Amino acid sequence: MKLAIAQLNPTVGDIAGNAQQILSAAEQAAQQGVRLLLTPELSLCGYPPRDLLLRPGFIALMRQRLDWLARELPAGLAALVGLAENNPQAATAGEKPLFNSMALLENGRVQAVFHKRLLPTYDVFDEDRYFESGTAPNHFTLTEATGATVQIGVTICEDLWNDADFWGQRAYAINPTAEVVAAGVDLVVNLSASPYVVGKQRLREDLIRHAVEQHRCPIVYVNQVGGNDDLIFDGYSVAVSRQGELACRAPGFQPALEILDFDPVQSDLSRAQTHPLPSAPEAEIWSALVLGVQDYARKCGFSKAVMGLSGGIDSALVCAIAAAALGPEQVLGVLMPSPYSSEHSIADAAELAQNLGVSTETLKIELLMRDYDSVLRALFAGTEAGVAEENLQSRIRGNLLMAIANKFGHLLLSTGNKSEMAVGYCTLYGDMNGGLAVIADLPKTKVYALCRWLNRQAKAGEPLGKLPVRRPATEVIPEHILIKPPSAELKPGQVDQDSLPAYDVLDDILERLIQQHQSAAEIVAAGYDVAVVEKVVRLISRAEFKRRQAPPVLKVTDRAFGLGWRMPIASRWSLDVAASQPAAAV
Amino acid sequence: MKLAIAQLNPTVGDIAGNAQQILSAAEQAAQQGVRLLLTPELSLCGYPPRDLLLRPGFIALMRQRLDWLARELPAGLAALVGLAENNPQAATAGEKPLFNSMALLENGRVQAVFHKRLLPTYDVFDEDRYFESGTAPNHFTLTEATGATVQIGVTICEDLWNDADFWGQRAYAINPTAEVVAAGVDLVVNLSASPYVVGKQRLREDLIRHAVEQHRCPIVYVNQVGGNDDLIFDGYSVAVSRQGELACRAPGFQPALEILDFDPVQSDLSRAQTHPLPSAPEAEIWSALVLGVQDYARKCGFSKAVMGLSGGIDSALVCAIAAAALGPEQVLGVLMPSPYSSEHSIADAAELAQNLGVSTETLKIELLMRDYDSVLRALFAGTEAGVAEENLQSRIRGNLLMAIANKFGHLLLSTGNKSEMAVGYCTLYGDMNGGLAVIADLPKTKVYALCRWLNRQAKAGEPLGKLPVRRPATEVIPEHILIKPPSAELKPGQVDQDSLPAYDVLDDILERLIQQHQSAAEIVAAGYDVAVVEKVVRLISRAEFKRRQAPPVLKVTDRAFGLGWRMPIASRWSLDVAASQPAAAV
Repeated sequence: MKLAIAQLNPTVGDIAGNAQQILSAAEQAAQQGVRLLLTPELSLCGYPPRDLLLRPGFIALMRQRLDWLARELPAGLAALVGLAENNPQAATAGEKPLFNSMALLENGRVQAVFHKRLLPTYDVFDEDRYFESGTAPNHFTLTEATGATVQIGVTICEDLWNDADFWGQRAYAINPTAEVVAAGVDLVVNLSASPYVVGKQRLREDLIRHAVEQHRCPIVYVNQVGGNDDLIFDGYSVAVSRQGELACRAPGFQPALEILDFDPVQSDLSRAQTHPLPSAPEAEIWSALVLGVQDYARKCGFSKAVMGLSGGIDSALVCAIAAAALGPEQVLGVLMPSPYSSEHSIADAAELAQNLGVSTETLKIELLMRDYDSVLRALFAGTEAGVAEENLQSRIRGNLLMAIANKFGHLLLSTGNKSEMAVGYCTLYGDMNGGLAVIADLPKTKVYALCRWLNRQAKAGEPLGKLPVRRPATEVIPEHILIKPPSAELKPGQVDQDSLPAYDVLDDILERLIQQHQSAAEIVAAGYDVAVVEKVVRLISRAEFKRRQAPPVLKVTDRAFGLGWRMPIASRWSLDVAASQPAAAV
Repeated sequence: MKLAIAQLNPTVGDIAGNAQQILSAAEQAAQQGVRLLLTPELSLCGYPPRDLLLRPGFIALMRQRLDWLARELPAGLAALVGLAENNPQAATAGEKPLFNSMALLENGRVQAVFHKRLLPTYDVFDEDRYFESGTAPNHFTLTEATGATVQIGVTICEDLWNDADFWGQRAYAINPTAEVVAAGVDLVVNLSASPYVVGKQRLREDLIRHAVEQHRCPIVYVNQVGGNDDLIFDGYSVAVSRQGELACRAPGFQPALEILDFDPVQSDLSRAQTHPLPSAPEAEIWSALVLGVQDYARKCGFSKAVMGLSGGIDSALVCAIAAAALGPEQVLGVLMPSPYSSEHSIADAAELAQNLGVSTETLKIELLMRDYDSVLRALFAGTEAGVAEENLQSRIRGNLLMAIANKFGHLLLSTGNKSEMAVGYCTLYGDMNGGLAVIADLPKTKVYALCRWLNRQAKAGEPLGKLPVRRPATEVIPEHILIKPPSAELKPGQVDQDSLPAYDVLDDILERLIQQHQSAAEIVAAGYDVAVVEKVVRLISRAEFKRRQAPPVLKVTDRAFGLGWRMPIASRWSLDVAASQPAAAV
């Protein structure tokens, strides 16, 4: 019996377009004799639909398209299609209004609807906001043309993730996988929309293999692919046979239709196509960010991007990502030197643009700096030049970039990294401007690592998205950008380390604060200077107002700034510095 | 037996400061012979603490301060204090890591800890993200000096709000109020942090009165007060006697300590002080916004505010609110005329500032407009002046305001209203700049209504926060601002209605889309032109990227932009326009 994994890239909210994608996959699958098509979680509306789910018209439209799809599906093909369904007993039982469901379509009709049981409500996930949990194990019988039957257990994304034995602790009271296996199924399918985080695919495969071994039941895991705002779905759908062997792995970061064979006699999956995993974390992150930019642009209706090129490493990396995502001819880099810009900055930016094949414009900002000063002279009389004047330079550049974006319909990409977003070493309404913050979940040290990887790939002549392979193969990020001390160049001789700890120190402290939720006392106990730690905690807390107004941040770690980071502003979270000190000192 | 309602204004995260506030209230209450002090939900950390709750050090610090508070409380006084507590069986039972709890402190120790049972997870609330529900009804016995005992039922905020009879439907499976009453209590306390929404206090009192009548049990409801980022807590704590009579109402929009008498023989509350409700919705909204600005500024460490004064109605209202919140001498209005500014705009802004007693600066932007044009001339050659050039004017002003804010440490207030935020009739990085969006939850028609109310109050010589009462009493918003057609003045002769439907039409369509979740088809069926409705839906959908980067919006309606509005950007929510049309047309 043939199964197909439809690793789809839906646009959130585009129900008609997503239904058409499912139908096209179904038609291709039917031509190959497939009996059952598997699509990702909420495949009709795309994941995450967020507050679109609060609109009854949106729910009604999904059901309408589902019925249409049931009628249009090729004869002989069954399909599992994801949608949000009304919960009819919500008002009487005091439950949430919707279910996160998978509908089984066959013979022109909706044959069954299965409800997700475990609803993630942490990080970027808000499923308890909308959905009620399903109460019963989900399974059905599929009959082959020969009359043979296969019992299939249906789990939806998180349903697979409460494996107490794997994690060493439970995250939910029930284990839906164990429940469907106990019901006697031959095969478990897990239909997911699981966002990318660095290293996550290895974790997923370990988890799936562990579940297969524990339950002695093959599992087919289907993931969504594509960028939806801040979230990047990496695909890599996999099937694991009853023996715990990888029977199939779809490619990462691209749509795919993978055909699997399930043998009802052996009651197992046969070996099919297996695409490799990325060779290094940098390779994954690169592919994720390229896809994130590509899909954000496409789904918002942009074909071209613009960004400032400072000659620094952050804008260099963002420019390379944009060129790989959209094509170099679709990218405009804008050099905006001031009197504080070094010669090498301009030369480095120009060399980068040439390496990448992107066009550039140069707009000098000195005149604007002078005239802002003259407009503000009387008001600022007697004050020292400082942060206000430095920020003005950044904001002049931000305005010029937005003027270009508005004039030509380009998407402005912001170029800040996670380290500077964390401590507020960036200018709100200046260099933070943009529709998408491409590398704002990458700490500065990781920005360097990714650029070095990129240069190695380029020198080895490896393909890099839509970047042309250069002959002879050479680096793309000019070496000088990688070795010079980082500087915002907002005053003469300025370097980042005038204001911040060394980036390896800063990034480790930030990782402890942001990802590991360590208190300042714990970080000090790990060997860091108390004054440095307290400074970083103070900076991160005070920069919350900037982060609140940042563009969506492409997420590549398990704790990114954006919708999964919900911190108060008018607040004092620096106070937990004192958590391990004597009460009298608080 | 005397009870005290401590209607406190905590700063989120400032555990030591909040504990000190509780102790001061306890000491005052003890001097008046109070036996039990009631504080709001999460009174130790302030509500909402959001992701501060993910930090173990923060939870530990709360428990540490709770123990300190138990030791410091005056002898003979018991207190209910709110905090987040660890759930010890989280990892073994698959539960959330914390409880939203109230601790009963007495005799130097924590005597009992009660867990909130209904966890709101909708709109701005995310309690399922952090908390596990308590499973048992919460009550305890308080013994008087005479040896008499009173059984007290404890409910926390949402616990009161699942009254199926009152609402006509259930929101949760259980009713914690009914459960504590069934356990035989003499009195129910409800300890809340219930954010302000226009008209909400009347609803709360109806709900409480209904519960009292249904359960024949007096209820004391304690609310937090004060602004925390986007949320404004209005206070108005109340007590309702067994007879359904209002025994006490604390004042709105200010901290208070109200003393109540519970007679164990009558088993009822005696009548105490009853502060009046506001006379009109505008009076409520005014007080809410004034408090919101005051507390955001104070809790972020600002004493002064700055804003652009365009001569239009939005900035006029925001300036009045800021002057009432901080004092006119703490507010700077900046006039930034362009060649497109009308004479009357400058005159109106100046008159407004004079009426309010705020100082002004005038900075002409023509030179900067010319400079940007000249810097961009070559690049923009052959294009028509349009949105890019209009936005530049707004962004020049935004930069000047931020330069002033940065230079002098002022809080920049943004002045946009809800109608323009909805349809994107505002400039990102321009007039949207600011630390707080003061009136961005007020539709334009409500901005007019509030300004007219304000003028009536001023003319009647009524006090308006820190605004001086003028002798002779006259209007504060110049009449001409109220009667002229609204205009952004970004090109000659421009008025808002060149681009937008009339504001009464627009605001009604927006209310149907945003608050009532109506589909376009339903709005058309209500009598609106299909082209107008489709335009508004398209505009609101396309402006999502701007709203995502807006400052926190002071919330006064039940659906404000901000943390309670979670819409995708790279998406098509305009599609549900088609929900009621034939499938073929989709």
